[in-house]
Amino acid sequence: MLDTDMIDYNVSSRIISLTTDFGLSGHYVGVMKGVIASMDATLRVIDICHEIPAYSVAEGAFVIAQSCRFFPAGTVHVVVVDPGVGTSRRAIVVESGGHYFVAPDNGVLSQVYEQGPLQPHVIDVERHALQPMSRTFHGRDVFAPVAARLAAGRPIGEFGEPAGTCVQLPSTIPEETVTGRWLGRILTIDPFGNIVTSFREKLLPPSGTSFLLLTGKLEVSTRAEAYGEAELGAAFAIVGSSGYIEVSAARQSAAKLAEVKVGDPVELILL
Amino acid sequence: MLDTDMIDYNVSSRIISLTTDFGLSGHYVGVMKGVIASMDATLRVIDICHEIPAYSVAEGAFVIAQSCRFFPAGTVHVVVVDPGVGTSRRAIVVESGGHYFVAPDNGVLSQVYEQGPLQPHVIDVERHALQPMSRTFHGRDVFAPVAARLAAGRPIGEFGEPAGTCVQLPSTIPEETVTGRWLGRILTIDPFGNIVTSFREKLLPPSGTSFLLLTGKLEVSTRAEAYGEAELGAAFAIVGSSGYIEVSAARQSAAKLAEVKVGDPVELILL
Amino acid sequence: MLDTDMIDYNVSSRIISLTTDFGLSGHYVGVMKGVIASMDATLRVIDICHEIPAYSVAEGAFVIAQSCRFFPAGTVHVVVVDPGVGTSRRAIVVESGGHYFVAPDNGVLSQVYEQGPLQPHVIDVERHALQPMSRTFHGRDVFAPVAARLAAGRPIGEFGEPAGTCVQLPSTIPEETVTGRWLGRILTIDPFGNIVTSFREKLLPPSGTSFLLLTGKLEVSTRAEAYGEAELGAAFAIVGSSGYIEVSAARQSAAKLAEVKVGDPVELILL
Repeated sequence: MLDTDMIDYNVSSRIISLTTDFGLSGHYVGVMKGVIASMDATLRVIDICHEIPAYSVAEGAFVIAQSCRFFPAGTVHVVVVDPGVGTSRRAIVVESGGHYFVAPDNGVLSQVYEQGPLQPHVIDVERHALQPMSRTFHGRDVFAPVAARLAAGRPIGEFGEPAGTCVQLPSTIPEETVTGRWLGRILTIDPFGNIVTSFREKLLPPSGTSFLLLTGKLEVSTRAEAYGEAELGAAFAIVGSSGYIEVSAARQSAAKLAEVKVGDPVELILL
Repeated sequence: MLDTDMIDYNVSSRIISLTTDFGLSGHYVGVMKGVIASMDATLRVIDICHEIPAYSVAEGAFVIAQSCRFFPAGTVHVVVVDPGVGTSRRAIVVESGGHYFVAPDNGVLSQVYEQGPLQPHVIDVERHALQPMSRTFHGRDVFAPVAARLAAGRPIGEFGEPAGTCVQLPSTIPEETVTGRWLGRILTIDPFGNIVTSFREKLLPPSGTSFLLLTGKLEVSTRAEAYGEAELGAAFAIVGSSGYIEVSAARQSAAKLAEVKVGDPVELILL
Repeated sequence: MLDTDMIDYNVSSRIISLTTDFGLSGHYVGVMKGVIASMDATLRVIDICHEIPAYSVAEGAFVIAQSCRFFPAGTVHVVVVDPGVGTSRRAIVVESGGHYFVAPDNGVLSQVYEQGPLQPHVIDVERHALQPMSRTFHGRDVFAPVAARLAAGRPIGEFGEPAGTCVQLPSTIPEETVTGRWLGRILTIDPFGNIVTSFREKLLPPSGTSFLLLTGKLEVSTRAEAYGEAELGAAFAIVGSSGYIEVSAARQSAAKLAEVKVGDPVELILL
């Protein structure tokens, strides 16, 4: 039986992961990788996602929190969803659970903060950025070089002073509005159109118990254990791979059927 | 003269290729790479394609069969187009022509099976998956860890029992309906809009001989040797890089002109 | 103070960068990487961009010129935007400023030529291509294997004769039509919808001086120093990360507001 605990998380991985809203139609991501390779050609870079919807700090926060634990300890995770680039917003480095994070201090690490003790430091940008530093592309000028030096083993305290309190997004924890009725939100919609809600697995009653899950135009009252179980087009609730309850439809986009978007409300009624 | 035979295919490559329908807008592909790096940080991962149309086992089968021979021997090819994830469909490992394949047993390796002797084994999922194993994301929980162990040198027989007969898709071999008239299918449409038909190069008559190639709204009777030869917008037949006859249009999408999609019929009439 | 001069550019990097218009929905890019790995499994490949608009040699020229200087010296940059593949257009290798470039001779290196002394050589395709060579996919059959051998240290003169004069695109340098009025073009539109003009930073007057920047339906007379400074939806001029003046809109696509496309004119009026 192989489980995640058997993975050797004790070596520094010299891996940098990238999560951005830069998209893949431009050269921004490639340039970040060029900067990293220029500073240390032995570092490895792994893309998590570059198609976070533009400026969606909340979706960036979801993606990095769901992904980071599957990387080796010591990985440096760069997260650049940064509508405030060039303004006074701070840039930070954080250690959490043996992983490192480099990001703007705008809440994009909110869900990472819930995973373990943290030691946020503010990046002294004047000292650590490439010069001349632009005010529009800190992925290249600040976050990539800091990540490269961190992955090469420089201590986190070297990049600047302790940060104190960091920006947090509003909680995504569902609210029980009246007994048995929960109000949640859509955290993300995946490439298959599965609607990932903010309801954790434990809220979904076991098979055989009645419930209603409502979002947009969809009203779902059945639960499936696997996407392929249901009839073509039928919508159902399912526990997704992140442990959240999803609204899905067999071989169709549930999000299109429901006509919903990220942030929309979802209601769970236990009958 | 350098030819493909000069490539040294004798060393185990420790390379894993990935082909999925996960798309790039989510974090699924990045997480698979994180799992692989966590198990063995020295393995290299190369993306073949992550934009196989969702659930299109047939297009996944085409892409992996066209691509795998350009990789070094010993490469482990992971192919996850898997609408049946979490159901009773089997997961398999296969060796063919010095390459390894890890995939669901749903036909996605159909065209690989035609390329050499095979030793399919069923993956004993309970023994080899990450725990706890989801029922919705076997790319992360089953295929990535099995690929990492295979690329690290574990023998194929270690993953489970011989698989016996595996699922095969219907043949894509064209049919001669009456003498000189062939009925084929669209195998794929590439990013330029070139229509890749199931007709092999040898079916196309030499230049100077008359033929008609019909698909959707397009009727083609000329042959070009290079995409850039024809007049802007004119449609023509051409032998593509995979050895299949393509219907193309100079600097335009032939698929848009023809209004066709993958799986649609194509007729070749030799005059 | 870390600046780009501190990066050690003295070692051969054994890195290959890829810039193409192949898109990511097909297997073309993955196959190029397979060929490179087959020839030398120790080479590293970094994607710059694969979503150059199909056949847009001008946008390919912009992207590679903006990106290459952020890579380590010795990097081999493969640029395949190649509408003339299979015709008599030449394939070339070029050295410029310690970097190597492998591309069709169709102008896609025009802006690289401005960056330093060059030694273009024509690739002797018959001698250096994979055999059998297709006439439709030279990324796989010509450019990838030549790049792999170049990155492995083979001298540039080995690939063919000196090339003499290479194809150049029309200049993108703005023209002063009457005193104080400049006519330029849109060089590219980035994934956020920022409109990158051909006006260099030095043309934009300092804050407090009046100007008008006109493109499509947008008329801009304010300057911002950071994207996040302006009010939601307001359009402004800003110096982008490449040193060109951009027309941007806070958290919106300026290109959509202006209804413009690459190549469209932009006028700058100094008041």
